Amino acid sequence: MDRSRVGLKDVARLAGVSVKTVSNVVNGYVHVTPATRTRVEAAIKELNYRPNLSARNLRQGRTGIIALAVPELDIPYFAELAHFVVACAEERGLTVLIDQTGATREREQLVAEGFRAHLIDGLIFSPLALTADDLAARVDDTPMVLLGERVSGGTADHIVVDNVAAARDATLHLASLGRRRIAAIGAQDDAVAETSRLRLAGYRQALKETGLPRDDRLVVPVEAYHRADGARAMAALLDSGPMPDAVFCFNDLLALGALRTLLERGHSVPGEVALAGFDDIEDGRYGTPTLTTISPDKQAIARQAVDLLADRMAKSSQAEAREIHVAYRLVIRESTNG
Amino acid sequence: MDRSRVGLKDVARLAGVSVKTVSNVVNGYVHVTPATRTRVEAAIKELNYRPNLSARNLRQGRTGIIALAVPELDIPYFAELAHFVVACAEERGLTVLIDQTGATREREQLVAEGFRAHLIDGLIFSPLALTADDLAARVDDTPMVLLGERVSGGTADHIVVDNVAAARDATLHLASLGRRRIAAIGAQDDAVAETSRLRLAGYRQALKETGLPRDDRLVVPVEAYHRADGARAMAALLDSGPMPDAVFCFNDLLALGALRTLLERGHSVPGEVALAGFDDIEDGRYGTPTLTTISPDKQAIARQAVDLLADRMAKSSQAEAREIHVAYRLVIRESTNG
Repeated sequence: MDRSRVGLKDVARLAGVSVKTVSNVVNGYVHVTPATRTRVEAAIKELNYRPNLSARNLRQGRTGIIALAVPELDIPYFAELAHFVVACAEERGLTVLIDQTGATREREQLVAEGFRAHLIDGLIFSPLALTADDLAARVDDTPMVLLGERVSGGTADHIVVDNVAAARDATLHLASLGRRRIAAIGAQDDAVAETSRLRLAGYRQALKETGLPRDDRLVVPVEAYHRADGARAMAALLDSGPMPDAVFCFNDLLALGALRTLLERGHSVPGEVALAGFDDIEDGRYGTPTLTTISPDKQAIARQAVDLLADRMAKSSQAEAREIHVAYRLVIRESTNG
Repeated sequence: MDRSRVGLKDVARLAGVSVKTVSNVVNGYVHVTPATRTRVEAAIKELNYRPNLSARNLRQGRTGIIALAVPELDIPYFAELAHFVVACAEERGLTVLIDQTGATREREQLVAEGFRAHLIDGLIFSPLALTADDLAARVDDTPMVLLGERVSGGTADHIVVDNVAAARDATLHLASLGRRRIAAIGAQDDAVAETSRLRLAGYRQALKETGLPRDDRLVVPVEAYHRADGARAMAALLDSGPMPDAVFCFNDLLALGALRTLLERGHSVPGEVALAGFDDIEDGRYGTPTLTTISPDKQAIARQAVDLLADRMAKSSQAEAREIHVAYRLVIRESTNG
């Protein structure tokens, strides 16, 4: 059959459903049973039917695509999160276009300002460089859900984990082991490094509460949050800082890098140095020692993000922005519990 | 300025370039210098100009979007590859829509048959479940580049690493250490598990060449290629198989899982058991011991894929399908070199 002539009617006839149902499937609406969706998709496949997106767009202003903009895909936290977002979106028949911003202000601004708004129905965005003012100044009206530390200024739905409380919990755990010289790896000078700022605040709060002295030589800055940065920071600390008996790293990649340096130099973990990270990426569960970490509920973050976004897209409402707090757990493993 | 009135001319005037140049940038053509592209994008941003994709589509049949379809994003090999593909595509002004197929035949078939062909100008596809026949039967004419083991049947450009040779090299390396009971973790019963089949063939070839006996109790099947599968397979081998003195795992995640089980049970690596993986993901470079592995040149794979695809898209040629072999290296680290 010449596919350019195949229409909704042909698909509906083959699938044994109404034209309206085919249209619902094609448009990614949620109120279609999985069985019906499968039948319709099989018919679409058999006939090689292609919905005319362009015409459909003009008529309905919908593409069935949402964008997920994250700093970097090869940071496992974001890859794991993207995996969950794609799965949740798929349940609603939505396709996810994934954007890597590289955490640069310029790329993030393009994302926020709807550079590709003509392609997407909604945006899930984890900005690192943009400020609340940047986001408040946004003129694009594509529905958006923000993830992460950045304050939205009340301009968009926002899903957040309490970084200060989580960093405090991790540090209190290290103190509870009797450790007194607790270092922190992951400080960043950059004025916009909000994640770093909040986790550092939680770390310092815990020191204060437990009466431990604040020694800024134990706070090690990093350029980025990769394994190599953690390995370098740990080496710098061992080379010139006071010897720590515990280290809280602001993410798991930093901790895995620091762990490598410690073991390479013959220090036992947790015997000499106890170590905790943040993110609960899968690597940390299989290394030796396994890594104590803060585990944000990534699946909940993804589900909330897709749900909030779908809600906005359906209503195109101007309702007040919501802020959803997602739970985290302190997961104690071998790196602090040898 | 009312953005609905902003046109190419306004952008061209502000950027100080011709309308044609703006059009080239908007359409993602490659023959625009980075400096000009930056200037045009700044003007687009300042004016909040939005190209009318729908009208443009109808006119030119182009969206500036390519799709990358991979089995799973939270497998680091694919996340690292996606990272490189996004970067290479971006240099050409192309946006990458990332698809997770879950390696199921049904989802892969939808991808191959151009279910979303109306959205994309081209497709980079890493199929695991589809056969050469499936691909040969494809009627969709969206330009496509295939990655990985699957034979394309000459229907599409194909980028491939020589899995048999690489697996053979890894096994020969283990034999060269004097190991005699070399196990293989990663066999799969599934008739379509081509990666597994090729790596097993390379492993067996090396045993034969070195005169080592073939002992099928040392070949351990897995359900999937995650850390947990490797950990389970290693436990099964230690519980009931002959004790190996080396293990070749068919990817790094399996090796990292197997490593965890070995260390947990008090076996030294590489002292008692030498261990090699495949993929060269970053985790393997930071664990203790660091992991010996086969390192396919992922950046070359990504660049070749984007280059071949862009070439197809530009020419819409029916030229014969090309097969590009990408180099790999055996990287010897602590897990075989203690």
